[in-house]
Amino acid sequence: MANEKMIALGENRSVIRDLFEYGLSRKKIVGEENVFDFSIGNPSIPAPKKVNDTLIHLLETEESTALHGYSSAPGDMRVRTVIAENINRRFGRNQAPSDIYMTCGAAASLTISLHALLHEGDEVIVFAPFFPEYKVFIEKAGGKLVTVGAREEDFGPDLEGFKAALSEKTAAVIINSPNNPSGAVISHEDMKKLTDILKDAEKRFGKDLFIIADEPYRELVYGDTEVPYIMNYYENTLVCYSYSKSLSLPGERIGYVTVCHEAKDRDKVFAAICGAGRALGFVCAPVLFQKLLITCHDQVADVSAYAKNRDLLFGGLSELGFECVHPDGAFYLFVKAPGGDDAAFGELAKQFDLLLVPSASFGLKGYMRVAYCVSEDTIRRSMPAFKKLAEACGISPKA
Amino acid sequence: MANEKMIALGENRSVIRDLFEYGLSRKKIVGEENVFDFSIGNPSIPAPKKVNDTLIHLLETEESTALHGYSSAPGDMRVRTVIAENINRRFGRNQAPSDIYMTCGAAASLTISLHALLHEGDEVIVFAPFFPEYKVFIEKAGGKLVTVGAREEDFGPDLEGFKAALSEKTAAVIINSPNNPSGAVISHEDMKKLTDILKDAEKRFGKDLFIIADEPYRELVYGDTEVPYIMNYYENTLVCYSYSKSLSLPGERIGYVTVCHEAKDRDKVFAAICGAGRALGFVCAPVLFQKLLITCHDQVADVSAYAKNRDLLFGGLSELGFECVHPDGAFYLFVKAPGGDDAAFGELAKQFDLLLVPSASFGLKGYMRVAYCVSEDTIRRSMPAFKKLAEACGISPKA
Repeated sequence: MANEKMIALGENRSVIRDLFEYGLSRKKIVGEENVFDFSIGNPSIPAPKKVNDTLIHLLETEESTALHGYSSAPGDMRVRTVIAENINRRFGRNQAPSDIYMTCGAAASLTISLHALLHEGDEVIVFAPFFPEYKVFIEKAGGKLVTVGAREEDFGPDLEGFKAALSEKTAAVIINSPNNPSGAVISHEDMKKLTDILKDAEKRFGKDLFIIADEPYRELVYGDTEVPYIMNYYENTLVCYSYSKSLSLPGERIGYVTVCHEAKDRDKVFAAICGAGRALGFVCAPVLFQKLLITCHDQVADVSAYAKNRDLLFGGLSELGFECVHPDGAFYLFVKAPGGDDAAFGELAKQFDLLLVPSASFGLKGYMRVAYCVSEDTIRRSMPAFKKLAEACGISPKA
Repeated sequence: MANEKMIALGENRSVIRDLFEYGLSRKKIVGEENVFDFSIGNPSIPAPKKVNDTLIHLLETEESTALHGYSSAPGDMRVRTVIAENINRRFGRNQAPSDIYMTCGAAASLTISLHALLHEGDEVIVFAPFFPEYKVFIEKAGGKLVTVGAREEDFGPDLEGFKAALSEKTAAVIINSPNNPSGAVISHEDMKKLTDILKDAEKRFGKDLFIIADEPYRELVYGDTEVPYIMNYYENTLVCYSYSKSLSLPGERIGYVTVCHEAKDRDKVFAAICGAGRALGFVCAPVLFQKLLITCHDQVADVSAYAKNRDLLFGGLSELGFECVHPDGAFYLFVKAPGGDDAAFGELAKQFDLLLVPSASFGLKGYMRVAYCVSEDTIRRSMPAFKKLAEACGISPKA
């Protein structure tokens, strides 16, 4: 018989995927244009033109066996070099190419980091709301998820709760800023306080504690929002990055994990990253997309469309009387479920063909995640449905 | 502190990689053309022209967000459909698209399969010589490697040894045919006997036992060699396939694992594959290379060059007095180390700038793996060095 835990994980369908498939079936019945699917985080903006141009150029000019051949296990050295330079230029760091391990996307970066760091029974602290797969990844690596809440007013980290959650069993903290699903960005002040608490705990417990920074949404910020670079606050940091959102290449699975050059026992930690990559089967990330980064590492998809969507949706829903957290980044709006029951509200929304994800999946009840990586037209056309939904649950427009 | 096992795996450099890097440094000293590097299995034949043409066509014609967007976790349904049809047409099977999970290459297929099937302490039987990472993959999944030898005359499986190795703790058997490093292909007769022994053990122990067929070299066979398709002998089979060698795309990491449609509890086993893929971070294999397979799944790189290399090398070395197993597949020649000490012979070979991998890395002492995925010219020019090597270790040409 196969492994029961793996069977359960495979059979346990995600709420988001279920909603998405419900949407597909509804579209067949009421027409594509009458279903407003805000369930999934698949970028709606094309990759920068330079991306496809570069891919075609590589395919047309490079010799096949050299282009498609294996890179070394941690990745192509030219690629790792431009990425280190990019980090150093943007964030004033001191990263070396040998601090960077190329991966097959953000999920791979996270599982490699967790398997590299954890011992059986170690605790990993995560701030709710959080990407549901964190729990799966942590438990597979032998760890235990410990959840800390967020401040209700701005979804910043609950620092008192964080202090209380730290224990001798803590090995790492996952930080996801900009956050999926709330869109919140951790401020300089909060980052400073959070890392001070962690430094204090390192002394108190006499052990190294790691921050795993999950940063696929780093480039998706609006206005003058700045996303603090965690290595500038805390040295025992691993940054997990993916080009899925920044280059609008979610299906191509290319990213990296980098160990802060000044991390304690940096060589050992990087060796553990290499060992975990090897043991899990992640060596030599897809090479065509590695090589793309030599010229496209600093390209960013045109996120102004997301900014426009955010303003349109935030403005429209607030006007109808919904309470929303104002998101500074990512492409999600976190809306309070009127009445507080997110599951019931989600079902009600479905009656108006509005597909919103109840927040319970993200470790926090009472909210809905509304993914605004859709066309502007979808948002505009969805407003009458949101209006009916507001009426149906008895909320009224702001005065 | 990071996980000690992972640190050790990351620090423990592979013999093959060490040799390869020694070769690079030697080339700088004595010149590129004077070092004969037979150490690595990176295909030397370009991808079929249709591969790059198709990639360029996809990039030029498909809309960006559709082309590069997420596929479902187990892969694009059109891709899984053409692969199922390919298997059914070639091997007379009954595979459904829903039996196929697209992966990021053969290593991913293997780790997903092992994590899906194993429970802590389960034994996995492997026939030596074997790809060294099997041990790493099995142990990471909580299993224990149990080694069975090969017949010295043809490197077929030692069936008596296999029978003796089966126990109540056995969960799976890995079969790699054509074999890396010996190039041996398991015959119809041996496959029949091997699977009969396994069926008998299933009855004896009252449990399902799985074959994990690792088949990256399936298309690399010469002459009229046929590679038995294991599902035709045994239903509890998972086939791990990669296009690395068949399409000469080793760095692009695209392959699949498929559960035999008639496997016992097939739905549960496939759910476990999905669960393991999810927990390890392998969902949605790289999509551009998935989509490539819609039109290129049945393309094969021109392996006639490998066949020519095999004949040239086998003929040349045999003539010099070396004893070699005649390989029917893959691109490796397995040569007996004169004197029996493969490590010492490897060091001696290095003195003539011949880079050969001692077989101890593959779980069997006394042989050298000679990878002939090199240019024909390299083989021709290496012959004088092999001649000197033969003289140095006192073997003489055949009469």
